[in-house]
Amino acid sequence: METNSFTTKASAQPLKNADELIDSVETFIFDCDGVIWKGDKLIDGVPETLDMLRSKGKRLVFVTNNSTKSRKQYGKKFETLGLNVSEEEIFASSFAAAAYLKSINFPTDKKVYVIGEDGILKELELAGFQYLGGPDDGGKKIELKPGFLMEHDKDVGAVVVGFDRHFNYYKVQYGTLCIRENLGCLFIATNRDAVTHLTDAQEWAGGGSMVGAICGSTQREPHVVGKPSTFMMDYLADKFGILKSQICMVGDRLDTDILFGQNGGCKTLLVLSGVTSLSMLQSPNNSIQPDFYTNKISDFLSLKAATV
Amino acid sequence: METNSFTTKASAQPLKNADELIDSVETFIFDCDGVIWKGDKLIDGVPETLDMLRSKGKRLVFVTNNSTKSRKQYGKKFETLGLNVSEEEIFASSFAAAAYLKSINFPTDKKVYVIGEDGILKELELAGFQYLGGPDDGGKKIELKPGFLMEHDKDVGAVVVGFDRHFNYYKVQYGTLCIRENLGCLFIATNRDAVTHLTDAQEWAGGGSMVGAICGSTQREPHVVGKPSTFMMDYLADKFGILKSQICMVGDRLDTDILFGQNGGCKTLLVLSGVTSLSMLQSPNNSIQPDFYTNKISDFLSLKAATV
Repeated sequence: METNSFTTKASAQPLKNADELIDSVETFIFDCDGVIWKGDKLIDGVPETLDMLRSKGKRLVFVTNNSTKSRKQYGKKFETLGLNVSEEEIFASSFAAAAYLKSINFPTDKKVYVIGEDGILKELELAGFQYLGGPDDGGKKIELKPGFLMEHDKDVGAVVVGFDRHFNYYKVQYGTLCIRENLGCLFIATNRDAVTHLTDAQEWAGGGSMVGAICGSTQREPHVVGKPSTFMMDYLADKFGILKSQICMVGDRLDTDILFGQNGGCKTLLVLSGVTSLSMLQSPNNSIQPDFYTNKISDFLSLKAATV
Repeated sequence: METNSFTTKASAQPLKNADELIDSVETFIFDCDGVIWKGDKLIDGVPETLDMLRSKGKRLVFVTNNSTKSRKQYGKKFETLGLNVSEEEIFASSFAAAAYLKSINFPTDKKVYVIGEDGILKELELAGFQYLGGPDDGGKKIELKPGFLMEHDKDVGAVVVGFDRHFNYYKVQYGTLCIRENLGCLFIATNRDAVTHLTDAQEWAGGGSMVGAICGSTQREPHVVGKPSTFMMDYLADKFGILKSQICMVGDRLDTDILFGQNGGCKTLLVLSGVTSLSMLQSPNNSIQPDFYTNKISDFLSLKAATV
């Protein structure tokens, strides 16, 4: 009898020996929401855990698909929560959009049309790109009279789409015109997350809805720079000269964080302090298995103690 | 040598003998924009052609994916252009949404949330359904403070999404909550057209963008009631007791009109008076071949004359 050549990924193991995992990697990439904080509340034991990892010489990186803030603006959130994290340790998808354009030598005489919030504009500006759209177009309306057409800037060479709570038809039409009519115009998505956590009281429609709207009108698929695309991981590995097998990705979502880690060839740790429960992880409908899972990152401290 | 069992659909033929086509069918279904009118202008020879077909006892039906108007409101457009078309001959996707809900016995104690314009509301009302949303939610904003959540009506059993120039984040979130949180809530799209003709001066992002946004946030696919889904054709065939082989679908778009006709098992005629050119039809990239093509529907008159 032939053996079946189809192999399934082994089921995730509960994390038992944190030291072994910590010693085996050089860098920890943390998703933020559901791992570091939940909404506006820090998750228990996070500061001590990060201190311990730093004391062991580990590089810490914080990634988020949230594109509404720049790295600098995001840094303030860490500060408010009493966490000592530098701007350079933060990789938000707003930064990823600008970093991606730099990585492909996007011409600085071309412009970027933004459907999204302030974070994307700030990062484009820091990277030296010209942009239009964003919050400025939040109140704009189209004026429908016979023969009316919306003029658009022929120098727009990329449309960047991220979460935008002031999303409107004007922006959809402007972005659509650029993508359909400007030759070679790029369509870049910061992320396609179905839901996001604007407030901790419920799940809110995420960047996937703004991106889906532009897919619907252009019949084009975007280049995604946030999770689970590996752009940020590749960028990090390249910038810091890290081997991806020396990275552990820690997150609370299977289809973004864990997939992101696996796509990048990293070790992966699922924490159950966010949206994924143990039963969701172990459901037969779930095909994404991290290497390890644990309740929360501060288990690094207790599991460590237990092994001494 | 084996013959290849893969058969391709024969290339479209230019319409040469209109009488033969006319005599072979009982009903003509016409797309409107690009067939009957272009923007606000009637296409040459349309009134005479429709008169000729009526004089031969043909049933005429006008279908449109435009959901912004009800059948009654759409009837006024025909009237303004000097065409004598009754409300019952018009099948707009706004009507199709209400007719679909009737066809599945959608409970009248449940409600419909509408992302779309007035036409959908009018048709839901005529069909006796309770609804909310639509233009009323056009100016609404979310108020983001910690702990804020948007309440939604737990009695919403269907979300209908159509073209909506007052599309906003409030509507996206409301519709998303209903679909994600109300058990069994339906997601119905009037159409997924990438572009539409709000004005004749350019192509405008169509209903596909509003539908795409809700797909992005719910990770669900809608049930489409407009073209190219065959719902309207099935409804017509059932209502009037027509065999679908006795119908000729006349349209200017390959991927909606002609596909709609073919999906329904009808004869198909492409007119080149709208968005499709002869070179697009004959391009090797195009796989959709109607039975016949001609420049405009008034060719029915001249081609008829030529055969006398």
